[in-house]
Amino acid sequence: MAKKEMRTVIYPGSFDPITNGHLDIIERAAKLFDKVIVVIGTNPQKQPLFTADERLEMIRASVKHVAGIEVEHFSGLIVDSAKERGAVAIIRGLRALSDFDFEFQLALMNRHMEPDINTVFLMPHERYTHLNSSIVRELAHFGRDVTEFVPAIVTQYLKQKNNA
Amino acid sequence: MAKKEMRTVIYPGSFDPITNGHLDIIERAAKLFDKVIVVIGTNPQKQPLFTADERLEMIRASVKHVAGIEVEHFSGLIVDSAKERGAVAIIRGLRALSDFDFEFQLALMNRHMEPDINTVFLMPHERYTHLNSSIVRELAHFGRDVTEFVPAIVTQYLKQKNNA
Amino acid sequence: MAKKEMRTVIYPGSFDPITNGHLDIIERAAKLFDKVIVVIGTNPQKQPLFTADERLEMIRASVKHVAGIEVEHFSGLIVDSAKERGAVAIIRGLRALSDFDFEFQLALMNRHMEPDINTVFLMPHERYTHLNSSIVRELAHFGRDVTEFVPAIVTQYLKQKNNA
Amino acid sequence: MAKKEMRTVIYPGSFDPITNGHLDIIERAAKLFDKVIVVIGTNPQKQPLFTADERLEMIRASVKHVAGIEVEHFSGLIVDSAKERGAVAIIRGLRALSDFDFEFQLALMNRHMEPDINTVFLMPHERYTHLNSSIVRELAHFGRDVTEFVPAIVTQYLKQKNNA
Amino acid sequence: MAKKEMRTVIYPGSFDPITNGHLDIIERAAKLFDKVIVVIGTNPQKQPLFTADERLEMIRASVKHVAGIEVEHFSGLIVDSAKERGAVAIIRGLRALSDFDFEFQLALMNRHMEPDINTVFLMPHERYTHLNSSIVRELAHFGRDVTEFVPAIVTQYLKQKNNA
Amino acid sequence: MAKKEMRTVIYPGSFDPITNGHLDIIERAAKLFDKVIVVIGTNPQKQPLFTADERLEMIRASVKHVAGIEVEHFSGLIVDSAKERGAVAIIRGLRALSDFDFEFQLALMNRHMEPDINTVFLMPHERYTHLNSSIVRELAHFGRDVTEFVPAIVTQYLKQKNNA
Repeated sequence: MAKKEMRTVIYPGSFDPITNGHLDIIERAAKLFDKVIVVIGTNPQKQPLFTADERLEMIRASVKHVAGIEVEHFSGLIVDSAKERGAVAIIRGLRALSDFDFEFQLALMNRHMEPDINTVFLMPHERYTHLNSSIVRELAHFGRDVTEFVPAIVTQYLKQKNNA
Repeated sequence: MAKKEMRTVIYPGSFDPITNGHLDIIERAAKLFDKVIVVIGTNPQKQPLFTADERLEMIRASVKHVAGIEVEHFSGLIVDSAKERGAVAIIRGLRALSDFDFEFQLALMNRHMEPDINTVFLMPHERYTHLNSSIVRELAHFGRDVTEFVPAIVTQYLKQKNNA
Repeated sequence: MAKKEMRTVIYPGSFDPITNGHLDIIERAAKLFDKVIVVIGTNPQKQPLFTADERLEMIRASVKHVAGIEVEHFSGLIVDSAKERGAVAIIRGLRALSDFDFEFQLALMNRHMEPDINTVFLMPHERYTHLNSSIVRELAHFGRDVTEFVPAIVTQYLKQKNNA
Repeated sequence: MAKKEMRTVIYPGSFDPITNGHLDIIERAAKLFDKVIVVIGTNPQKQPLFTADERLEMIRASVKHVAGIEVEHFSGLIVDSAKERGAVAIIRGLRALSDFDFEFQLALMNRHMEPDINTVFLMPHERYTHLNSSIVRELAHFGRDVTEFVPAIVTQYLKQKNNA
Repeated sequence: MAKKEMRTVIYPGSFDPITNGHLDIIERAAKLFDKVIVVIGTNPQKQPLFTADERLEMIRASVKHVAGIEVEHFSGLIVDSAKERGAVAIIRGLRALSDFDFEFQLALMNRHMEPDINTVFLMPHERYTHLNSSIVRELAHFGRDVTEFVPAIVTQYLKQKNNA
Repeated sequence: MAKKEMRTVIYPGSFDPITNGHLDIIERAAKLFDKVIVVIGTNPQKQPLFTADERLEMIRASVKHVAGIEVEHFSGLIVDSAKERGAVAIIRGLRALSDFDFEFQLALMNRHMEPDINTVFLMPHERYTHLNSSIVRELAHFGRDVTEFVPAIVTQYLKQKNNA
C-alpha cells in the first residue's frame, strides 16, 4: 500500500497586489499539495503600494473559493518561513526566461541552506505570461481598466489608491 | 481540517541509461507525492543503446531503496500515460536553460491537451547539471570510468555493452 | 505629404504542414505590408511528411481569406528568393527563446549577404507558443485530434497520410 | 492588383540620449513603413540626464536626413500613443537576449490591451549590440570620446552637460 | 622554441564583500596568467556595505595563499584600468545565463574601446553558482551563518557590521 | 618577482572547414598563452565534408602568420587530449546564447573529469557572430561567394568540392 502523508507547501511573494497569475499558481498548488501557505514577504528596501495588511486582505478575499489555503506575513528568509511551518516545498511560478535564471539562483541558495526543502516550479496559464504586479500598478495609475488581470477585490483597492 | 488525498505523478523519459541525475529527481518527487511512476518512453526514430527491458531492469534496481515508485513502459503521448494512470502531474527535471525552453513548450502542449494535469519542474542537485545519458554513453564508449555518474548496476550494464 | 510605396515581404518556412501559428503570422504580416509571399523551402537533407505540392495546396487553401498573399516554392538561399521577388523584408515568427537565438544568427547572415533586406520579427498569439509542425505530426501520428492547431484542410491531409 | 495603404508606426523610447543604435532602427523602420513617429516617453520615476525638450531637439537634428519621420513627447501608455496616432505597429529594437525577454512581456501586454496593434521587432546592425544610452552617459562622464556611438549633435550636448 | 611572455590580467568587481566564488575565480586566473590584479571598482551611485578600504583588506587577507596577486582601487572605466596596468585581458566569472548577457555587452563595449584587451570568461565551481555578494549580505543581515560562502575574515567583518 | 611559466592550451573543434571566426579565436588565444594546439576532433557519427587531412592542411595554411600554433588530430575525449599535451586550459569560443548553454555543460563535465584543466571562453569579433562551418558549407553549395567568411585557402578547397 502506498504511503499517505499530509504535505504543506509555502508560496512566497510580495503580492503588491495579487494578480490572476498568482491566483492561477495558488489553485494549481492546491491541487497538488494538502496545504498551501501564501507568505507575504516584506522587503524593507522597497516601498509597496499597499500595506502588508491590505495585501493580506486582498489575498484572503481572492482565495476564499480554494480549500486548504492559509495567508500570512513573514519578514525574514523564505527558507526560515518554510522550516517553521513544516513545509516540504517552496512553490514558485515560472513564466519566462528571466524568471528562470533568477529563480534558479534563489532555489539553489535555499536548498543550500535547507537541503530537505525543495523548490517546485509551476507554470501559470500562458494567458498570464505578460502579467505581473508592477504592470498592473502602472496600468491602474494611467486609468486603464485592469478587471481582466486581477481578482475583483483588487480592482476596488486600486481605484481607492488612485483616487486618494 | 485539511484534506488528505492520495496523489500519483509520472516521471517520463528515455533513461538510456538512468543516471544519478534522474535518480536525484525521483527521490525528490517521492518526498513530494505519494506515488511516482517512472515511465520509459520509446522513441521509434531513435535507436537506443539499451533495450526497453534492460532500461526497466536498471531503473528498478536503482530505485529499490525508495518507497512508492513504480516503473513501466509506455509508447504514445506522455499525457495519455498520465491520464491512464490517474496522475495529477508530470515531473520534469530542469537543469539548464536549454532544458527550460524545450520543457516549456512541451508542458504548454501537454496542458493544452489535458488541462487538469500539471507539469511540475524540479531541480536536480547542481552536481548533476552537466549530466545526461548521452554524455554517459560517450564516456563509457571511450573507456572512462562512469561510477560517480550512474547507479552501480548501470556501470555493469555499460561494461557489458562496450565489451560486446 | 508622406511617401506611399508598394512593399513586398517574404515569409519562408518548410510548412510541413502549415499550422494556425503560421497562419497567425501571415495574417499579421498582411496587415503591415502590401504583399506577403509565402515561400516553401525544400531542405534536401530532411524527408518531409508532405510533398512540396501538398504543402503548397494546404497553404493556398488556408490563406484564401487574406488579401495580398502569394504562395510559391523555392530551393536555394532565402535572401536570393527575397531579392528575386523585390522583397524589402523577410518575416520570421518569434515564439520562444530558442527561436530567438537561431533566428538572430540567420538574420545576421542574411543581412550580411543582402544589407538592404531586413528581417522583421513578429510574435504569434501566445496561444500558439507551444505549436510547431513537428508536434502536430506527432499528435496526428498517435491519433490525437489536431483540429484546434491547424487549418481544416490540414486535418484532412493528415488523416489521409496516417490512414495510408 | 495589390492594395496600397498608408501605414504609420511608432518607435517609443526614452532616448536619453539618442544613440547610433536608435538611429539605425529608425532608418530601417523608415524603409519598411510610410511614417515613423519617434515617441519620447517620460518615466516619472527616473531622473533623465537630458530634459524632454533637449532629447526632442537631439532626435530631430539626427533624423533630418530621413524622410517620413516625426518626433514627439508622450506621457502615458505606449499603446495609447499608438492608438491616438493611428499606428499599425510599435517598433522595438532587439539587440540581445535580455532585450528579448523584457520586450516579449511588454509586447504581449500591449497586444492584450490593443489586439490590432502589432509589435514589430527589428535588429540593429551588430556593431550596435553593445550600445545603449546609459553606457554612453557613463563614457561621457569619464571623459571618453563617444563620437563613434552617437550622432554629432549628441556629442555636443554631452560635452555641455559634463562641463556644466 | 615557443615564446615566453610575462602576462598580466585584471579582475574587476565591487567585492562587497569578496565571496568564495570570487576567490575561486582568482585562483583559476592565477594558474593561467602570471599576474592577477584584483581591481575594486567604486560605483558612485551605489552605497556599499563596506568601505573601499575594508574591501581591500578583506581581499588581501583572502588571497594571501595565492602567488602573483595584487589588489587595488580604481575609479573609472575598467578598460582604462587594464590599459594603465599593461593587462592583456580582463577576467570575468560566468555563472549563469543572466551573467552571460550583461557580460557580453560589457565585453563588446570594452573591446570597442581597447581592441587589444580581451575579455576572458572563467567558470567558477558549480557549488558557487548561487552565490553573490548581495545574497551574502542578506543572509548575514538575517543572522544566518555564512561561513561556508565567504573567506573567514569576511565572516568577522560581517559580524561587526551587523552588531554595529 | 612574478613567476613566468610556459603555458599551453588546446582549441578543439571539427573545423569542417575553418572559418574566419575560428581564426579570430586562435589569434586571441595566441596573445594570451604561449602555445595553442588546434585539435581536430573526429566525430564518428557525422560525415564531414572534408577529410581530417584536408582540414589539417587548411588550418595549417591559415595560421602560418601566427607564432606558437600547432595543429593535430585527436580521436577521443577532449580532456584526454588536453592532459596528454600538458595543457592548462581548453579554449572555447562563445558567440551566442545557444553556445553558452551547451558549452557550459561540456565545460562542467570536462572539469569533473580533470579538475586541473580550466575552460577559457573567448568572444570572437561580433562580425563573426553569425558565422559557423555549416553555414559556410551551405553558402558554397548554393554557389555564393564565401571569400569574406573563410581564409583564402578554404575558398579554393570549397570550389574543388563543389565542382567535383
